[in-house]
Amino acid sequence: MDNVLSVARKLDSFGISRRREPVIAFGGGVLLDTVGLAANLYRRGTPHVRVPTTVIGYVDAGIGVKTGVNFDNRKNSLGSYYSPTAVLLDRRFLATLNQRHISNGLAEIIKIGVVKDRRLFQILESHGELIADERFQGITETGESVAVDVLGTAIGRMLDELQPNLWEHNLERVVDYGHTFSPRIEMHALPTLLHGEAVAIDIALSCVLAWRRRFITIDELERVVAVMARLRLPTWHPACEPQLLRKALADVTTHRDGYQRIPLPLGIGGVVFVNDVTNKELAEAATILKGLAFP
Amino acid sequence: MDNVLSVARKLDSFGISRRREPVIAFGGGVLLDTVGLAANLYRRGTPHVRVPTTVIGYVDAGIGVKTGVNFDNRKNSLGSYYSPTAVLLDRRFLATLNQRHISNGLAEIIKIGVVKDRRLFQILESHGELIADERFQGITETGESVAVDVLGTAIGRMLDELQPNLWEHNLERVVDYGHTFSPRIEMHALPTLLHGEAVAIDIALSCVLAWRRRFITIDELERVVAVMARLRLPTWHPACEPQLLRKALADVTTHRDGYQRIPLPLGIGGVVFVNDVTNKELAEAATILKGLAFP
Repeated sequence: MDNVLSVARKLDSFGISRRREPVIAFGGGVLLDTVGLAANLYRRGTPHVRVPTTVIGYVDAGIGVKTGVNFDNRKNSLGSYYSPTAVLLDRRFLATLNQRHISNGLAEIIKIGVVKDRRLFQILESHGELIADERFQGITETGESVAVDVLGTAIGRMLDELQPNLWEHNLERVVDYGHTFSPRIEMHALPTLLHGEAVAIDIALSCVLAWRRRFITIDELERVVAVMARLRLPTWHPACEPQLLRKALADVTTHRDGYQRIPLPLGIGGVVFVNDVTNKELAEAATILKGLAFP
Repeated sequence: MDNVLSVARKLDSFGISRRREPVIAFGGGVLLDTVGLAANLYRRGTPHVRVPTTVIGYVDAGIGVKTGVNFDNRKNSLGSYYSPTAVLLDRRFLATLNQRHISNGLAEIIKIGVVKDRRLFQILESHGELIADERFQGITETGESVAVDVLGTAIGRMLDELQPNLWEHNLERVVDYGHTFSPRIEMHALPTLLHGEAVAIDIALSCVLAWRRRFITIDELERVVAVMARLRLPTWHPACEPQLLRKALADVTTHRDGYQRIPLPLGIGGVVFVNDVTNKELAEAATILKGLAFP
């Protein structure tokens, strides 16, 4: 929030025209959210344009109308719904990222694949490493067609989910997959885990829950864990201990207005929401996950 | 803004349900705005109910969807458009106010009368002092009918203006009357002038501008100044000197996107917007106003 107020102060001293001069934000998800919220608050709303320079910015934080910042050690506890005037997407920015940040963004794409688009997941299984090596720049012909396909599909599927539910009146959100336990894990591990890395762990943990309930097969569970391992994404972290997971479950129940509404995969590409995950079940899933995780 | 963040912190520690437990704000305009903005930001939006306990809260700050807080010595420079779930109006709260705060709120009602409703202005001319004495409580029969009429009319006229222009896409706002020069005057004089007192000075100054352009007669100008004097509202302040008024004119031109868009009365009950007020004209009007002002 301090950064939001610093940006607001800069907007004021720069003396921008209230309606006609958009603020242009270049950066990753955190920056886009921070500037978006400042633009929302400054004079009750100044137009802004988002130019994501990271994979998460490109396929996730740059899409939709949400802004959010951490406050008092709570992830995204302050924020707003505020639409940018435009989001300008240029894949060339992704060439500036290191491998860890490429993988970080791929976690959000895997998320969409697992619960929403089996074909997208299969492309990541076949070509995930090529995409990561080429950083979406299309150095080879296959790399080019796959990069365009993966980014376009991920964004299209996000929009399918967000557009009819812009203000989240429906709290059963498919895109919350990977975001049930990860906020606590990410905040606890700060700064050792990136956002997508915490999401990857949540994806894997949720797959174990899904497998124990027979929503996915052991083969499907292993495929999800394997694709993340090949992309050097973690699937477990020491923070995944019973006490923290219990808190995460309580948080999410408050956050989703009294019900867990946890999205779990149904096969690869489908989803089901559950409201009855127990702390015992969760602790057991974490133990199983630890055993499955690649070193 | 510090107060907004304090309220957000309290909401978090209180552990409210995100969608079903509205925050209930009791207080005047500043409090309603502060809590409204905190409710807007907390988890990207928590329902809130406004219960105004001042006249300004009742007829002005409690109406509409705006929140705003001062920031870096700029009045309302941060804020949002965020609708309350409900506004609960109970005149009995107004009995708790001292005479100065009653008059403070009457300034916003005079504003509506001068540029929007001649009948409302006439009621204030005839019965303003009775209303103030009775603090809208209807101690006499006349006092009761007049209090109900004045409050209801003021709110109705505000809603007529706000409803078709909720997000202020149209920057020619009748309700900005009295709010062109007053933000600078109010901030400069802090804490000696209340909001409505600064608005009263702006109403009078704008009437002098209107009289010099022959939009109102000298008789109409004197009637406006007289009704404010009888209600013990100031119509001049030492802050009304050329340098401050020049800054106010520059502010408002930025604020209203490159044009002054200053609402001036056209007779009593009508309005016209002007874009060509000069600093010289303004300084002369202030000098005239000083001479007109009651001691």
